[in-house]
Amino acid sequence: ALPSTSDSRLARQLGFILEIDKLKSVLRRSRLADDSRAENDAEHSWHLAMMAVVLGEYADEEVDTGRVLRMLLVHDLVEIYAGDTFIYDQTAIAEQEAREKAAADRLFPLLPRDQAVQLRSLWEEFEARRTPDARFARALDRLQPLILNYVTGGGSWQTHGVRAQDVLAHQRVVSEGSLALWEYINQLVGDAVRRGYLAA
Amino acid sequence: ALPSTSDSRLARQLGFILEIDKLKSVLRRSRLADDSRAENDAEHSWHLAMMAVVLGEYADEEVDTGRVLRMLLVHDLVEIYAGDTFIYDQTAIAEQEAREKAAADRLFPLLPRDQAVQLRSLWEEFEARRTPDARFARALDRLQPLILNYVTGGGSWQTHGVRAQDVLAHQRVVSEGSLALWEYINQLVGDAVRRGYLAA
Ligand SMILES: [Ca+2]
Repeated sequence: ALPSTSDSRLARQLGFILEIDKLKSVLRRSRLADDSRAENDAEHSWHLAMMAVVLGEYADEEVDTGRVLRMLLVHDLVEIYAGDTFIYDQTAIAEQEAREKAAADRLFPLLPRDQAVQLRSLWEEFEARRTPDARFARALDRLQPLILNYVTGGGSWQTHGVRAQDVLAHQRVVSEGSLALWEYINQLVGDAVRRGYLAA
Repeated sequence: ALPSTSDSRLARQLGFILEIDKLKSVLRRSRLADDSRAENDAEHSWHLAMMAVVLGEYADEEVDTGRVLRMLLVHDLVEIYAGDTFIYDQTAIAEQEAREKAAADRLFPLLPRDQAVQLRSLWEEFEARRTPDARFARALDRLQPLILNYVTGGGSWQTHGVRAQDVLAHQRVVSEGSLALWEYINQLVGDAVRRGYLAA
């Protein structure tokens, strides 16, 4: 633990900052582009934030990039306690919502109350996908592992027997945030099938 | 490489997104809070961005959090080619500026020209520390490894024979961005000496 301080607000904030270090140890199914190891949630979140900086012009609705960045930075925090859920595992997906809600109940209250409310509401907005910022953030969250799977020659698709139609069904939410990125995804999936990275 | 697309602007942007995946393999001297392994630059950048979200109220000057976030997300990108420079290695520090400039010349032009200029200028602003946003971003970049060193019982301080006066001299730039965080750092360093994590 960190040394205590007479400022209890700062102490809570630093306690939260220290606790979320654990996101660096939550492993995902995706592998790094050089195929050297599994990606973790913290570096994944950084990568998404960089995508929001670079690809913001492809959002179909007007988005507030600063909000999209904050949303992407916090969107996986609940996985510190709930773990990463593989998107093609139907049983795990069914239980995921309850596990993530319990995780949010545990994590966000580490912060001072005003910030706990703000960050939790950003996470809920991301999950609900009812605002332009959330739809664009979610599109990036889908595109990023697709890129890693492609450049590693199939990556977690091959390991888990995923097919092109599963990928496209899962990626369809991208079309809610960006038609240009959705078009690119269709091209990428077609190319992955042609190259044998992904079963038709 | 990714499949080519008829939109060459998008192709360049995605090429950049793929290239910066390498930041996840640039290792730092700091270890994770649970002491399990060395931290990498991508997850470090995410952690700093979360600190900007949570600790923004301690900036002494008015800052634009969205700009601070973008600056922190890009601030270590040049280390993809230039490597991480240990802050207490005087020889490496002397050569660092030239190496990082060469790295920037190589990395940012992967982007379309308008974005290359924008991101490079954010990186240069961070390095120059002449704006409120840069001074606050730099303060967070100093505080974060201090926290990791403390909770790992000395971490890279012990390995490299660093003393309290070296740490405080290096941390002094924090006082340019946030006196509240600078005060906390003094307390933390004093406590680290008392506990034997850091030589007096
Ligand atoms: Ca840094």
